[in-house]
Amino acid sequence: MEHVVGIDLGGTHVAAAVMTTQGQVLHRHECDIDRFADPQVILRQHVAGAVRTAMQASEVARIRGVGMGVPGNLDRVSGICRYSPNFRWHDVPIVAPLSDELQCPVFILNDVRTHTLGELHFGAGKGLKSFALLALGTGIGGGVVVNGRLLEGAHSAAGEAGHISVEPDGPECGCGNRGCVEALAAAPAITRLAQEAASRGEAPMLLKLAGSVDAISPLTLTQAGEAGDPAALALWERIGTWLGRAIASIIAVSDPEQVLVGGKVARAGEMLLAPARLEAGRRFRMIPPGTTPIVAATLGDEAGLIGGAALALESLGYLESALAPVPDRVPR
Amino acid sequence: MEHVVGIDLGGTHVAAAVMTTQGQVLHRHECDIDRFADPQVILRQHVAGAVRTAMQASEVARIRGVGMGVPGNLDRVSGICRYSPNFRWHDVPIVAPLSDELQCPVFILNDVRTHTLGELHFGAGKGLKSFALLALGTGIGGGVVVNGRLLEGAHSAAGEAGHISVEPDGPECGCGNRGCVEALAAAPAITRLAQEAASRGEAPMLLKLAGSVDAISPLTLTQAGEAGDPAALALWERIGTWLGRAIASIIAVSDPEQVLVGGKVARAGEMLLAPARLEAGRRFRMIPPGTTPIVAATLGDEAGLIGGAALALESLGYLESALAPVPDRVPR
Repeated sequence: MEHVVGIDLGGTHVAAAVMTTQGQVLHRHECDIDRFADPQVILRQHVAGAVRTAMQASEVARIRGVGMGVPGNLDRVSGICRYSPNFRWHDVPIVAPLSDELQCPVFILNDVRTHTLGELHFGAGKGLKSFALLALGTGIGGGVVVNGRLLEGAHSAAGEAGHISVEPDGPECGCGNRGCVEALAAAPAITRLAQEAASRGEAPMLLKLAGSVDAISPLTLTQAGEAGDPAALALWERIGTWLGRAIASIIAVSDPEQVLVGGKVARAGEMLLAPARLEAGRRFRMIPPGTTPIVAATLGDEAGLIGGAALALESLGYLESALAPVPDRVPR
Repeated sequence: MEHVVGIDLGGTHVAAAVMTTQGQVLHRHECDIDRFADPQVILRQHVAGAVRTAMQASEVARIRGVGMGVPGNLDRVSGICRYSPNFRWHDVPIVAPLSDELQCPVFILNDVRTHTLGELHFGAGKGLKSFALLALGTGIGGGVVVNGRLLEGAHSAAGEAGHISVEPDGPECGCGNRGCVEALAAAPAITRLAQEAASRGEAPMLLKLAGSVDAISPLTLTQAGEAGDPAALALWERIGTWLGRAIASIIAVSDPEQVLVGGKVARAGEMLLAPARLEAGRRFRMIPPGTTPIVAATLGDEAGLIGGAALALESLGYLESALAPVPDRVPR
C-alpha cells in the first residue's frame, strides 16, 4: 500500500492527513502555528512536523509525496508563494525547503483551488465536467473546473471569485476595492453585520445565544436562524443575495454545470443558498432561472486535507489530472 | 483551391464572404433582411441567396461548407437556435434547412463566440492561449478562450458577459435584470445617455454634429470625443468605467492573458479603453493593476464574416479546433 499526505495550511493552524493512493484517509494531525513566524520555521518545523506526526500515527514510514493548499497567489511550477496577505508572504519558496525537509515530492496550489480538486475527485464535483466552487470562510475563494480541468488562469488568479464586486459602493475589502463579495459575505463581514444588528437591539436572540455582542459569530447567526429567528433569517437573506450576485457573474462568464458552495459559512445551508439561488436567477437570465444547480459542497472541514491529498495523487499520476501538464501562464 | 463561406446574420442584414481554406477572403456580399419574416424565408432565401451571390462574384462553383454566427443561444450540435431575442426565434432549426438549400455542411455558433474564433485564428487573439472578448454593439456579447479552447459552457452560455450586473439598481436590461453592462454600455444605452445630455444642454457639440437630439448616435459621441469635447469625453469615461467593472469580473473568474474589446462601439478606442483599464485595475486587485492588457480587437466590421469562415474552417479540419469535439453540455 502506498501513501500521500495532504496538508491544509491556514492562518492559525496546519493540519496533515495520511491518505492511501486509493483515497482512504488514515490519520490526521493538527497543530497551531504563528502565521507571522519566519516562513522557514513554519515550513521546516510546523508543517514538516505535522506530516511526521500524522505518518507516525498511521504507522506509515514512507510517503510518495505531499500536496498542500496555501492561501494566496502561488506559482506551482516554481514552487513559490508569490503573495499571501494572510501570512504577509512575498515570493516565499515553499516546495524547495519542504521537499528538502521531507525528502519527497511536494506540490502546492492555492487553498481553494486545492479544495476544488478535492471536490472534483472525492466530493460534490465527482462526475461533473464543469463546476465552480465558492468557499466562504475568513475570506472567499473559488475554483472553476471546465472540461474536467481546473482553470488556473494566466496569472494563477482564475477563480478569485471572492473579489467580484457586488455592491460598487459597498464596504472596503481587504484587497482595497469596495463591495467585493468577500467584504459582504465572508465570516468577518457576517460577524460585523450580526453584531451591528444586535447592538441596535434588532436581534435579541443573537445576544441571548452568544451572551454578549462581541461573542456573536457566524455560528451564532446559523443557530439563531435554525431556531427560526426572523432577524437572523433576514440577515442570511441579505448575505445570500450578495453571494447570488457573485454566482450570477460566475455563470455569465463560465456557465458551469453546477455551482458548489463550501467553507465554514456554508454550514448555514439553505438559509444562505435559497436567497443565493433566487438572486442568481434574477441577475442572470440568459438561461432559465434554476438551470444551474447551486448546492452545498460536501467535503466540509476536511476539504483542505482531502484537497491537498488529491493534489498529490493527481501530480503523482494516481488520479486523472485536472491540472494542466504545461501551465497556462505568462511570464511576470 | 478549396473554399468555405462565412456568414454574418444580424438583425438588419445578412453578409456572406467566400474565403479560401488558407484564410484569404475573396468576395463579400451583403443584403438587408426583415428579421421578423418567416425564419425559413430568411434562411432559405436571404441567407442562401447571399451565399450564392458571394460565390458567383468569386467565381467559386463549389464550397466545402459554411459557418454562421447567429445572435442568441444556439445548440450547435442539434443545429437549432434555442432562443434569439433579436429575431424572436424559439427552437428554430437552422442547420437542416440551410444545408438542404446549399447542399453542403453548415455550422452555427453564437455570433460573438464566432467572432471570438475569428480573433483567435485571424485577429488579436492569434498566439494567445487564453483571452476574453467583449463585443459592444446593439447588445454586448462575449467569448472566453482558455487553454486555446473556446469555453462553451454547460448551456452554451459561457461568455455572456454583457449580462454581468455592474450597477445592481441600474437601468433595466432587455433580459429583465437591472444594471447589466449591456444596459449601460451597448449602443442603445450610449445613444440614450448622449441624447439625454444633449437635451439637458450639457453637450452642445453633440447637437451641433448631429443636427438634432434624435440624430445623436454613438458615432456622434466618438466624433465629439475625438474633437476634444469635454462632455463627450466625460460620457465615454462613464461608459468605460461600466465596461471596466464587467472586465474585472471576467478576470476574477477566468484570468485571461488579455481582454479584447470589439464591436462598433469600440471605435471610440482609448476614450473607452483607458477608463475601462483604470476601473478594472481598481476593482480586481488580486494581480497588480495593468497585468492583464485590455486592448482593441482587430477584425472590425469583418469580425462576423471572418469568424463564420473560421468556424467552418475549424469544423472541417482546416484549422486547429478551439471547439470541443464532444460538446460540454447537459441535457435540457
